[in-house]
Amino acid sequence: MAKIPYKIYLEESEMPKQWVNIRPYMKELPEPFINPATGQPCTAEDLEPVFCHELIKQELNVTDKLIDIPEEVQAFYKMYRPSPLVRAYNLEKALDTPAKIYYKFEGTNTSGSHKLNSAIAQVYYAKKQGLTSLTTETGAGQWGTALSMACAFYGMDLTVYMVKVSAEQKPYRKSVIETYGGKVIKSPSTTTQVGRKILAENPGTGGSLGCAISEAMEVATHTPNCRYVLGSVLNHVLLHQTVIGQETKTACEKYDIHPDIIIGCAGGGSNLGGLISPFMADNLEGKSDIKFIAVEPASCPSLTRGKYAFDFGDTGKTTPLIKMYTLGSGFMPSPNHAGGLRYHGMSAILSKLYHDGYIDAVAVEQTKVFEAATFFAKTEGTLPAPESSHAIRVAIDEALKCKESGEEKTIIFGLTGTGYFDLSAYKAFNDGTMTDYIPTDEDLQRGFDTLPKVDF
Amino acid sequence: MAKIPYKIYLEESEMPKQWVNIRPYMKELPEPFINPATGQPCTAEDLEPVFCHELIKQELNVTDKLIDIPEEVQAFYKMYRPSPLVRAYNLEKALDTPAKIYYKFEGTNTSGSHKLNSAIAQVYYAKKQGLTSLTTETGAGQWGTALSMACAFYGMDLTVYMVKVSAEQKPYRKSVIETYGGKVIKSPSTTTQVGRKILAENPGTGGSLGCAISEAMEVATHTPNCRYVLGSVLNHVLLHQTVIGQETKTACEKYDIHPDIIIGCAGGGSNLGGLISPFMADNLEGKSDIKFIAVEPASCPSLTRGKYAFDFGDTGKTTPLIKMYTLGSGFMPSPNHAGGLRYHGMSAILSKLYHDGYIDAVAVEQTKVFEAATFFAKTEGTLPAPESSHAIRVAIDEALKCKESGEEKTIIFGLTGTGYFDLSAYKAFNDGTMTDYIPTDEDLQRGFDTLPKVDF
Repeated sequence: MAKIPYKIYLEESEMPKQWVNIRPYMKELPEPFINPATGQPCTAEDLEPVFCHELIKQELNVTDKLIDIPEEVQAFYKMYRPSPLVRAYNLEKALDTPAKIYYKFEGTNTSGSHKLNSAIAQVYYAKKQGLTSLTTETGAGQWGTALSMACAFYGMDLTVYMVKVSAEQKPYRKSVIETYGGKVIKSPSTTTQVGRKILAENPGTGGSLGCAISEAMEVATHTPNCRYVLGSVLNHVLLHQTVIGQETKTACEKYDIHPDIIIGCAGGGSNLGGLISPFMADNLEGKSDIKFIAVEPASCPSLTRGKYAFDFGDTGKTTPLIKMYTLGSGFMPSPNHAGGLRYHGMSAILSKLYHDGYIDAVAVEQTKVFEAATFFAKTEGTLPAPESSHAIRVAIDEALKCKESGEEKTIIFGLTGTGYFDLSAYKAFNDGTMTDYIPTDEDLQRGFDTLPKVDF
Repeated sequence: MAKIPYKIYLEESEMPKQWVNIRPYMKELPEPFINPATGQPCTAEDLEPVFCHELIKQELNVTDKLIDIPEEVQAFYKMYRPSPLVRAYNLEKALDTPAKIYYKFEGTNTSGSHKLNSAIAQVYYAKKQGLTSLTTETGAGQWGTALSMACAFYGMDLTVYMVKVSAEQKPYRKSVIETYGGKVIKSPSTTTQVGRKILAENPGTGGSLGCAISEAMEVATHTPNCRYVLGSVLNHVLLHQTVIGQETKTACEKYDIHPDIIIGCAGGGSNLGGLISPFMADNLEGKSDIKFIAVEPASCPSLTRGKYAFDFGDTGKTTPLIKMYTLGSGFMPSPNHAGGLRYHGMSAILSKLYHDGYIDAVAVEQTKVFEAATFFAKTEGTLPAPESSHAIRVAIDEALKCKESGEEKTIIFGLTGTGYFDLSAYKAFNDGTMTDYIPTDEDLQRGFDTLPKVDF
């Protein structure tokens, strides 16, 4: 075996031609979405006013293990993929660990993250369906940027409801989205009924993803030829993101790499789900025994401190009910929380896998995350996104455990993106003004109080 | 021949192990630097107080066609290189041109540009020499970021004099540099004699690269174990940047690509010089007949409207005299000029090649550049740096000429970096508030009046 290069790039011909649907591999399926009006599982018809037709089919598909990637989407992927699987030789050396550390780096496109993988697929299907405009929400801004890039490519109109506090922390994210032709509205806004209601109840709120989703959905359902698209949480988004895991797995097979641990940050779960799905399929079939770790912020700890319950996907309580780990759709992360990973819930698929013991979860504090981020930047060169740095933190912790024990474990983590639009957070860390926040049980209870009072 | 992929990535084993020194290939050498105190060509001893020993040797080396890249530098290159040679299939389609367009994309590292190629080499030699700190200047910020990354890697202290107007246009550039441990001082500053003098003469000036160089050199020569390093213009910087051209040439040979035109933006000339050197060597040996085009901003037109004369490299008139195309060391670009490419002079090597007819030059206006940049972003995905977008502008113009003539020319341009820290300029363009500036003959005359009154 030749020495493993710093960066493994697959050939175009080795890129995946199908997405991996993890649900058919699962011993038990996640609970179906519930239509709160009927109390019954959502049908395709229920979802049709909100989502694109083909995406609904993917959302509800629990039988096909592989779903073809349209050729146009494959062609677009080739503009910025395959992404490299990087051997973190310098990080290993700096940590003096016997562990072998790899990261799958999704930050080499302008959106700065993996979000483009699903954005282009969703816009492709919307275009094919004859739609003319889309709405969405964005928090940290990666999703809004990715979607504006995809909409620019297909000439589709886009309105982005951007969480107000993020828009103010990251004014240039707005400029990028506008450069690609997207329209940005700070959420909560007065442009929607639900926004006006939230503002009346919480004047001065910094907003949340849950609010922004409610606003974007309201506009989508009241505009002709318009649909709503989402950048995480949903099954079809995880599906699209499996290009990450598939490329990683192909690279591992090509270079005889056998991961012991795979680590990903988890907000809504799309990156983690996409990274682990092909490996999880092997675990579920008894072919491997990889440990998967979801890393979430201590300030928004849906897996580690949330409830596994049916909840709304948005603050306005307009979505179907999803059985997931949730802090309650009324939960608002503390304003000192930097970056994304601020959603109150977690992908139904990952929630189920976590609930059934197939995934571990860890919550980490913000200053520890930025310590890891800065250390990584100085040794590996790349300035990581705050979100991705949650995974770096735990990868370093695991590598240091190996140093203690002498074990030569192979660790792979997802470096979902770059921190180029997160400099205000880095500045706060450099200046020593960054603080941590761990919600008290009372704080969490206020979120849980917003959970629906029904059960199914 | 297989279809050319969107992105050609070389193997690590195909990366260059030597830099290409173009001077031994030239029919006539550039004039040597002159020591203004003696009126004689600079010796190594003259330069020793300012520059690292090994870099001086490279600076003065006009005989060795190839210079070994130290193994440690090769290893660092592998962290972020090889960079892709991208076939701009989507741009070709959008322009409906028979031309084949490629770009060598240097923006996939955190500095956002090619500057890291020389930064790491310079810091390596400084470390090897036992130095403990470095000073430099930065304009648009790519060089300062690249150098702070390299200094973080080698544990070297760094002070960056950043052109004041750039520091204010790009506050986050400062935060990136600080995250990597660099100290940023806005130039002109009161921390140096030359800075105080410039401030006294021009209170309220936005600064210039020439000022910042003077300040950084003053500190370097007055601090023990400290040297000054520069990110462009000098011969050794062009030398390091030849990794760009060599990778491009290897990719061309591998895929049977024969460029008719190679285009690069030109500020100090390091990117253009690095990109074209290996191809220029072939042209000079009669093996090829490629057309090279240097693209500069109409607002800082050193090649197209400057004088070929001996001039100082800095505003404080403390450097050796360099025979180059120059607008005069006192020339200050208009404050409406966005991004880099604001240096008053041009690499001595490129100046000589241009003077002798081996390179063409074109000056383009800012709004036309941003039109091209936005078009490129929407079709090829990547948001380009304003500097790089000068090359995009001319590549598009050349491709449109092919559309007229039906010629199937092969065009390669250097996409030196990304525009992620240039969003204020994009915002101005989106808002319609961006303006153009073409200096009048009188404006230029004020710069020429600062040229030394001597000749050698």
